[in-house]
Amino acid sequence: MTKQDLIEIPKPLDQLTATELERKSCIGKVMTYTLKSLTNTYVNKGFQWLLPVALSQSTDPLWPDPGASIEKRIEVDIYGKPVRTTASMIIHKLIAASTAYPKLFILSPNIRIEKGERAKTGRHLYEFTQLDFEAQGACSKDIFALVEEAIVTLIKDLKREMKSELTTLCRCDTLKVPKTPFKIYDRVELEAKYGKDWEAVITSEITEPVWVTNIPREFYDFEDFKTGKWDNYDLFLPQFGEVLSGAKREYEYTKILTKIERDQVKKENYSLILKMAKESRLKPTAGAGIGMERLVGWIAGVKHIAECQPFPRVPGNVNEL
Amino acid sequence: MTKQDLIEIPKPLDQLTATELERKSCIGKVMTYTLKSLTNTYVNKGFQWLLPVALSQSTDPLWPDPGASIEKRIEVDIYGKPVRTTASMIIHKLIAASTAYPKLFILSPNIRIEKGERAKTGRHLYEFTQLDFEAQGACSKDIFALVEEAIVTLIKDLKREMKSELTTLCRCDTLKVPKTPFKIYDRVELEAKYGKDWEAVITSEITEPVWVTNIPREFYDFEDFKTGKWDNYDLFLPQFGEVLSGAKREYEYTKILTKIERDQVKKENYSLILKMAKESRLKPTAGAGIGMERLVGWIAGVKHIAECQPFPRVPGNVNEL
Repeated sequence: MTKQDLIEIPKPLDQLTATELERKSCIGKVMTYTLKSLTNTYVNKGFQWLLPVALSQSTDPLWPDPGASIEKRIEVDIYGKPVRTTASMIIHKLIAASTAYPKLFILSPNIRIEKGERAKTGRHLYEFTQLDFEAQGACSKDIFALVEEAIVTLIKDLKREMKSELTTLCRCDTLKVPKTPFKIYDRVELEAKYGKDWEAVITSEITEPVWVTNIPREFYDFEDFKTGKWDNYDLFLPQFGEVLSGAKREYEYTKILTKIERDQVKKENYSLILKMAKESRLKPTAGAGIGMERLVGWIAGVKHIAECQPFPRVPGNVNEL
Repeated sequence: MTKQDLIEIPKPLDQLTATELERKSCIGKVMTYTLKSLTNTYVNKGFQWLLPVALSQSTDPLWPDPGASIEKRIEVDIYGKPVRTTASMIIHKLIAASTAYPKLFILSPNIRIEKGERAKTGRHLYEFTQLDFEAQGACSKDIFALVEEAIVTLIKDLKREMKSELTTLCRCDTLKVPKTPFKIYDRVELEAKYGKDWEAVITSEITEPVWVTNIPREFYDFEDFKTGKWDNYDLFLPQFGEVLSGAKREYEYTKILTKIERDQVKKENYSLILKMAKESRLKPTAGAGIGMERLVGWIAGVKHIAECQPFPRVPGNVNEL
């Protein structure tokens, strides 16, 4: 029997028993508290709160990405033009942070039709929400400090103010305030030590959040062409793995063009960012996206992060609502 | 020259001049302040903050609706099942408020592919965000009081804390804290006085927000079969019209079934709400959705509510982002 066999697929609201509803309600209260805490932290630090978009001509290519498992990309026609559902608002963030909103965040619903075989990993959804943020002029260290402060503040306050909910969820004693600064690992070292499956190994071995840096992926993350090092990062949580992905970003035209061509990403979907970069109007930024369901899933101690969703979005499992 | 000829279609971020960017940034700060104020008000009043969904088998039929002008309904297949983009989360709210979340709100992105001829009304978008909320056991009066308090608190605080932004937007003197309680009109009286165009007339004549009640529309709003009166409401703002739509809701099986059949709405898309009602598990609730772009558009004094969007969603006008 594998670990996945033990994970049940979270049921829709109408099928929950009274006890299950009470648990669902507790997780909902933790989600509410988390959203309030994080949005207040970002607003108080001068970030502008942008509303998300659902349909755009351009969205995240999610490629190359070592963790990708997308079964289908949704494209529809509106007003005679093809638009895609939001995979992430990374391109929107880069343009917005370079123009009217130097520091911004978005509670952004992302659609990623993951393969149905991921139903029982406990950590994949076909719709989820990122707290997606970006800051002009920031470097990786700034982002580390900001995220660590946001998470530590959240956990500290939660442990003080949500005792009853954490007790119901059996997390009162086991949820600890993480020590800062979080440890930082280089992906190259992890790969040397654990092989290709390093993500699975550290996810199951760590007991506190840890950063992993230097991960080859999409064109918009900063890559040093001389050293081959990537100035990007993931935050890993025990059990749930990557809860945040981010980077210092590329902003130079020739680098972006070279990488788009190298990755064989469709150039015509990224004409605006290329144009802005060519005109030197794309600014250096850094940012990240925090997966809300994974973060709250870790806090609440769920088996499947879809337990954090009022309307579960489990790969392969479509309910009426 | 009509009023609409004077309205320009808001440009995307990359095409704004320095002065226009400064204005955009001010509107963004008003949006941030508004989101923080409203979410804090709702959380402090015990409402749970739910994350939105984008694709569901069941969504708002938006029919019958006197104001509807939908050019296209988006339906796609995922995992072999047809799903629709969210027109509103009304059905989700009714199920959620009847089960794990008796008081809830959602910042819900809604997709409504409005006809392109609505590009220059200044008050239509093909994507917008509602602060959508619902409360078990509430009546219309409770909702009026809650919304009036939320709006008055917001405007009072904004006028105190966002003076510089309101000055740039030329709203420092003209934006007044509305007097409570807001006036309430019955749609029947307005129709008798102004004819079928009553919405346009009151939108241009009022100087403060006003409630309009008793509006025939979708099956889920409460209708008294004996008197023919609807226990529902819209909140109208000067210039922008309906900024909020809401109601006490139907929860009795036979009434819901009768109305779905009468309206010729596809019954198979609403099997869950019918099932819950039949089993007496649907609870009496009341709620509403506040259009964030219209609310902020009114506060900021824009000509087109797409000015409140970082990525304008003007009917008929699709940009790259």
